[in-house]
Amino acid sequence: MPSRKTGGSSPKSRPRADRTRADLVLGIDLGATKVVSALIAPDGTIVRHSGRHVHANDGPGGVIRALVRSVGAVLEGAPAFRPHAVGVAVAAQVDPRTGTVVHAPNLGWRDVPLARRVSEELGGIPVVVLNDAHAATLAEWRFGAGRGASDLFCMFLGTGVGGSAVVGGELLEGGSHALGEVGHMTLVVGGRKCHCPNWGCLEAYVGGWAIADRAREAVRSDSVAGAMLVARAGSAAGITAQTVFQAYRAGDVLSGRLVRETERYLADGAVSVVNAFNPSLLILGGGIMAGMPEFVPVVEAAIRARCQPPAAMARVLLASFGENAPLVGSGVAARLRPSPGRSRS
Amino acid sequence: MPSRKTGGSSPKSRPRADRTRADLVLGIDLGATKVVSALIAPDGTIVRHSGRHVHANDGPGGVIRALVRSVGAVLEGAPAFRPHAVGVAVAAQVDPRTGTVVHAPNLGWRDVPLARRVSEELGGIPVVVLNDAHAATLAEWRFGAGRGASDLFCMFLGTGVGGSAVVGGELLEGGSHALGEVGHMTLVVGGRKCHCPNWGCLEAYVGGWAIADRAREAVRSDSVAGAMLVARAGSAAGITAQTVFQAYRAGDVLSGRLVRETERYLADGAVSVVNAFNPSLLILGGGIMAGMPEFVPVVEAAIRARCQPPAAMARVLLASFGENAPLVGSGVAARLRPSPGRSRS
Repeated sequence: MPSRKTGGSSPKSRPRADRTRADLVLGIDLGATKVVSALIAPDGTIVRHSGRHVHANDGPGGVIRALVRSVGAVLEGAPAFRPHAVGVAVAAQVDPRTGTVVHAPNLGWRDVPLARRVSEELGGIPVVVLNDAHAATLAEWRFGAGRGASDLFCMFLGTGVGGSAVVGGELLEGGSHALGEVGHMTLVVGGRKCHCPNWGCLEAYVGGWAIADRAREAVRSDSVAGAMLVARAGSAAGITAQTVFQAYRAGDVLSGRLVRETERYLADGAVSVVNAFNPSLLILGGGIMAGMPEFVPVVEAAIRARCQPPAAMARVLLASFGENAPLVGSGVAARLRPSPGRSRS
Repeated sequence: MPSRKTGGSSPKSRPRADRTRADLVLGIDLGATKVVSALIAPDGTIVRHSGRHVHANDGPGGVIRALVRSVGAVLEGAPAFRPHAVGVAVAAQVDPRTGTVVHAPNLGWRDVPLARRVSEELGGIPVVVLNDAHAATLAEWRFGAGRGASDLFCMFLGTGVGGSAVVGGELLEGGSHALGEVGHMTLVVGGRKCHCPNWGCLEAYVGGWAIADRAREAVRSDSVAGAMLVARAGSAAGITAQTVFQAYRAGDVLSGRLVRETERYLADGAVSVVNAFNPSLLILGGGIMAGMPEFVPVVEAAIRARCQPPAAMARVLLASFGENAPLVGSGVAARLRPSPGRSRS
């Protein structure tokens, strides 16, 4: 999955010579197929990074070995240097107080004490663990589109739809550290089945998988109108959200309809989020937004026109970070958080 | 509007003789048609109270005079006593930092410096002002169904639908002090027109006005099925949500359908709220819940079955306080908050 590689794609990469080592923390982004480690400077720049592929089949032991190898590659050439703190962002439900991965569906993990195990592997360095959407929000808040804001909401639209809130200058955790799952707000009572146990979720309309599903259904019901989409994707089954966006830009009528429907659902979801969380700033990120940044003004217009008056003044911005957001945010967390490793030692 | 009278209806009223005066704060609930003042003990009990009718036509001056008269009645017989703090809950957008009522649609107010004016009228006592849903949540959190919880969401279903969140042991304000307006999350894209600028809001299905509207439409489209409802209400125009609930209990088939539809919309809205805010506890209050407490287990079952796994464990409870919640919460706020009156003097 080379698209998840960091570094070259980062607008904030900078030669390592600029930095003093004592300033650096180690950030780690652990996804379902890849782990990336990086040395991160106090201003959020990625100084050096390295990735390894991981497989759920490897189990926690194998995945943690890959993680440690990626850390070793980042620290190579500086054998005496140890960063003073480590943050790990995981696509999972985590308990940041204990550093435990409570449930990582894509890795097949339950109750893995990741902070403790990584800390042990790294010679006792304090390790904090947090959810990747929360990490990405920390990155946007501290170094990206949300710099200086004290009330913001980040919505990430990728294959799935997630989010996270900063309110009154604090990143909110929630009762089981899962606050911000606005992709699973019901948007259409009795609507499309989501990948979660609910029906009609926002994600079931504007998540990458859902846009692709809707496009495939449209193509099947009208093969003439769907000809351009199928030609671009090779087959109906090969259609993705990005195929739809590209065909739309090439003038495809069916894709135009799908894009307009998507922006309507997204606008309604954003109105809900802004009314519920009353942020001063809504940040939209993820692959869907990267493919269709034109959604930003549409969402902002909907908020102005249809939110409650106190909420309707929220600005809307595109996220500053792309795929590096959780990695950069894991570094922010390493600096910010009380470390479970430290409290146990 | 005698139904808003406090005291006799309060399960927490207690003779004043039990209390030492120095413990008491003054709580005030300022609604669109009535203002109620009360002396409130540290445990939230209402020791003594008095209400006055108000009219939007009186303007801020007239309404504040009525407020001061209600305070005078509460303090009568204790001429030397002055409470050490005052809280005012208002059905309005407020700025609690300055004590200003930013916008109170029902009173027709904009930017009224209520804390300052009330403080002047009461001889310089510090006054805090807050939104009534936030006040009601403080009451439930400190003395009611939410006692001891650090992550809860209160939804109030009355004529309208409002809410407020406590996360990590803090009542959340939001960027313009309006966080929690979950009545205006879109539940049905392109759905029923709400009283707000949006369409398809939760409130447009489960708010008291919306239940009544849906019932009137059902009666108009089938006058035979609607006969019992019309007979109870005197006319189609006279139907309210409570008429529907009463007719349902008397076995009316049409009302049964309306109740089941309402509980479905409410369950979907609650799933959205719990996924978005991840509370450990969802508290449901307001006149709709008082009329149909059976909605509580239905909502809880929906949360168990359809929320994201980390969120699905949230408990659901009926609110402890009825109409007194904002009044009691205004007393909590008086004790808790940094006072804008104090910081200015």
